[in-house]
Amino acid sequence: MDELRERIAREGRNLGRGILKVDSFINHQVDASLMMAVGRELGRRFSHVGVSKVLTAEISGIAPALTTALALGVPVIYARKTKPITMPENVYRETAPSHTKGHMVELLVSPEVLQRHDRVLIVDDFLATGQTIAALARIVHQSGAALVGIGTVIEKTFEGGRAYLESLYQVPIESLVTITDMSNGLIVFGQ
Amino acid sequence: MDELRERIAREGRNLGRGILKVDSFINHQVDASLMMAVGRELGRRFSHVGVSKVLTAEISGIAPALTTALALGVPVIYARKTKPITMPENVYRETAPSHTKGHMVELLVSPEVLQRHDRVLIVDDFLATGQTIAALARIVHQSGAALVGIGTVIEKTFEGGRAYLESLYQVPIESLVTITDMSNGLIVFGQ
Repeated sequence: MDELRERIAREGRNLGRGILKVDSFINHQVDASLMMAVGRELGRRFSHVGVSKVLTAEISGIAPALTTALALGVPVIYARKTKPITMPENVYRETAPSHTKGHMVELLVSPEVLQRHDRVLIVDDFLATGQTIAALARIVHQSGAALVGIGTVIEKTFEGGRAYLESLYQVPIESLVTITDMSNGLIVFGQ
Repeated sequence: MDELRERIAREGRNLGRGILKVDSFINHQVDASLMMAVGRELGRRFSHVGVSKVLTAEISGIAPALTTALALGVPVIYARKTKPITMPENVYRETAPSHTKGHMVELLVSPEVLQRHDRVLIVDDFLATGQTIAALARIVHQSGAALVGIGTVIEKTFEGGRAYLESLYQVPIESLVTITDMSNGLIVFGQ
């Protein structure tokens, strides 16, 4: 994804403490056409694993998860952080520390949309510590469905999420752009 | 949008008090392919008004707004309900009563993504009372940009949102499916 890397190099801002501002094209404002390219590429990388559902967490995972689901021809589920009144009483529920908010957030998925026979690809915008993705994976396991892969748009390798997830799950993990160092105001890309 | 109407007839649930449960294909779980058709149709209806940005409110507006933006070849902005640390200090800020949560919610848009020269199409999943859409329209006006249209997936005509918005803004308002009555457990579609 040269296009994505170039866009991060041009518009991304290192706000310190590992926080990458990409809200002019990935979250807040989304470049719809770039996001389609992201979905096509993630879809291509997971075309062989038999995905039946894409799962993400609201809010900023929705755009890349939707375009990936579209590329794969399957539905997408976004875990809710607060329970809407349309959700049944008993739901799959896990918690994860919020990377940017400094407290725990809940992730809720209705048993109506995730079933034992499902083969689930988790997609999110960032792979950082891996805590949100691990919470989504626990929801997949609660439901009895199979986790078949993890795909993210931007991986910050220095936060260790990949190693953490690899220690827990034997599934392919793909990220489209890796950032290896954000110390001293830098944004250093992996090869 | 016969496909959408049939899907609502088949899977939609009237939960009472005007609440339509469509979380198996529009929110929570999203039928990605149906959502692309929604975006294509909304894009077609607003292809003549010179849209430069699509604006929506997180969370369930994101999917239809993204696919509409894709059809129109423009970026999409989703107003945030809580301020991320990547957002600057001074932002466009409006409040709207939440239809389903019973309290006021804030909508925040960064001046970095919405400018005076923009021509904005507001897209949301539901047109009910019109309060959220009106709050988004006030943000458009704060920014000095022009509001050029309002497009929604499902309109509940009995909540009066269209008349309210028409009294405030002289722009085309389009919804793909109208529901005229949800009393007594019914889901009655408009023609």
